[in-house]
Amino acid sequence: MTVTVAIDCMGGDYGPVVTVRAAHEFVRKHDDVRVILVGLEEKIHPFLENTGESRVSVRHASEVVAMDDSPALALRNKKDSSMRVAINLVKHGEADACVSAGNTGALMAISRFVLKMLPGIDRPAICAILPTAVGHSHVLDLGANVDCSPEHLLQFGIMGASLVSAIEHKDWPTVGILNIGEEDIKGNEVVKRAAELLKDSGLNFVGNIEGDGIYKGEAEVIICDGFVGNVALKASEGLAQMLGTFLRQEFSRNLLTRLVALIAMPVLKSFKKRVDHRRYNGATLLGLKGIVVKSHGSADVYSFTNALDRAAEEARTGVLERITQRVELQHPLPESA
Amino acid sequence: MTVTVAIDCMGGDYGPVVTVRAAHEFVRKHDDVRVILVGLEEKIHPFLENTGESRVSVRHASEVVAMDDSPALALRNKKDSSMRVAINLVKHGEADACVSAGNTGALMAISRFVLKMLPGIDRPAICAILPTAVGHSHVLDLGANVDCSPEHLLQFGIMGASLVSAIEHKDWPTVGILNIGEEDIKGNEVVKRAAELLKDSGLNFVGNIEGDGIYKGEAEVIICDGFVGNVALKASEGLAQMLGTFLRQEFSRNLLTRLVALIAMPVLKSFKKRVDHRRYNGATLLGLKGIVVKSHGSADVYSFTNALDRAAEEARTGVLERITQRVELQHPLPESA
Repeated sequence: MTVTVAIDCMGGDYGPVVTVRAAHEFVRKHDDVRVILVGLEEKIHPFLENTGESRVSVRHASEVVAMDDSPALALRNKKDSSMRVAINLVKHGEADACVSAGNTGALMAISRFVLKMLPGIDRPAICAILPTAVGHSHVLDLGANVDCSPEHLLQFGIMGASLVSAIEHKDWPTVGILNIGEEDIKGNEVVKRAAELLKDSGLNFVGNIEGDGIYKGEAEVIICDGFVGNVALKASEGLAQMLGTFLRQEFSRNLLTRLVALIAMPVLKSFKKRVDHRRYNGATLLGLKGIVVKSHGSADVYSFTNALDRAAEEARTGVLERITQRVELQHPLPESA
Repeated sequence: MTVTVAIDCMGGDYGPVVTVRAAHEFVRKHDDVRVILVGLEEKIHPFLENTGESRVSVRHASEVVAMDDSPALALRNKKDSSMRVAINLVKHGEADACVSAGNTGALMAISRFVLKMLPGIDRPAICAILPTAVGHSHVLDLGANVDCSPEHLLQFGIMGASLVSAIEHKDWPTVGILNIGEEDIKGNEVVKRAAELLKDSGLNFVGNIEGDGIYKGEAEVIICDGFVGNVALKASEGLAQMLGTFLRQEFSRNLLTRLVALIAMPVLKSFKKRVDHRRYNGATLLGLKGIVVKSHGSADVYSFTNALDRAAEEARTGVLERITQRVELQHPLPESA
């Protein structure tokens, strides 16, 4: 089976210089993939490699969604944007997944409008991978939904568990809910009720997880509403950046510390590699009738290639079918006579 | 003017071995302070220094609030706990502030019951200091309130700004609200409405701040509801801990890296000192008719002394009067005829 990934080549801070190069890298890495490069032909062509590779094709799209376009405007006024054309390719079955580093709000709005939701899922959720002390966890929602009902949080749990069981081949991944204490009585009403639903869901629910539990790896899937998840994720990014800056500053304070830095370089490099967020690039927009992966806007070639890998792996392992089956298990269809 | 601090000596993971020693250290550091050590006399005495220091006194209290006591039970059944007696000393004017490293929920419940709220403030909020790339910020609420109205968030802004203007002698500190985007249209309804109230409040409101903005130092006071604040704070703690572990692991991988660690030790130490959370120990329970500071449960002597410093400084600079004045400015009392 060949997996075809449609790439919105115009999105992100760098556009084709990153996206097209990453596409070639991706095709070189995997024998079973094809890519459709979507965007302004004249911008894409300079970065096409002349390898005669038949698994790379280009689809012209005349418009570009800007990073500061409002989602509503992008949806209504830019019907031939690279983002929308890439999503359309998924809808019409020409591609198995699409990847964009563009405007998150627009990607969400257009995906939802074009692809529609899977049966039994009310809202899409953004699911990303965070490194932990013992491996990594999948956290959702990271910003698609600012207000969630207990039922939405349950759906996030089902989707997250289905994703992990597909791409990581784990039958019954652990699922936790982000809260401000480990006891059942803690938290707001929505979270308490969601925990009850999760307990009865048949998922491998391990209960409440506090903020530090994310990085301790207390569950393979961690659920939260998009407001809390987004703040926690960005606070983490900000803290990591600050600590990195402090470490660099201390090592470049004077000639002596610079010398020490040279000596310590191999160790510092292996530390840096270990916490390199580029390895985890690619957040999935879960809940749609199609695979849509959002890359970080500032992704480089290595990073964007990882997002392409993720999209392909989700297509290969049938994430959408897993979610659908799991939802049906939860809400059995009424028996027909 | 002498500032008297009542210390719940039994709270925290270590009890008197830390709290009593820190009290002596605190008294040595400041000429203008007295301490009242509250708790089981027989547990406190072994750690009393025989200096004949008249500024250190002991007040016996026969009970101890355990870390896992429910707040309601601690409030109802332990009327002679060290925590409650310390808070009573504040209520009756025998102390200007109290500090505890004990059970946060119990400290909140007992403080609120004994001291009551300041006029115009509906709920207490937990306010702590976080380090930033450019200094530090005060963030509240960090877990006292799981659901907040826009008016509560406005009150948090007023209290936070009053605190900073008192203890840091800043006339008009910047105030931001934690949100999932910088634009006005982002976020949930509560945050949007709170932002409107803050705009009209006369505070130096700088608008929405995303999670990473905390550590960039985008505002001196950052407001959020207790659920979001608690998750962001604990996620940060967890991440910092994980990164510290990774760094240590890389430096102790083999003989060579251990040698490098020895050479890099002074640099690593100055990095560690810079991000030492013990410097920032001491969260204020704002909004009460009395100064109550919560120390981290795992605080050591250095760390607990910092919490005592913080409590004394708040008493010296009249934080409560500042909040009261600022609230009156916000809601002028009806003019009497």
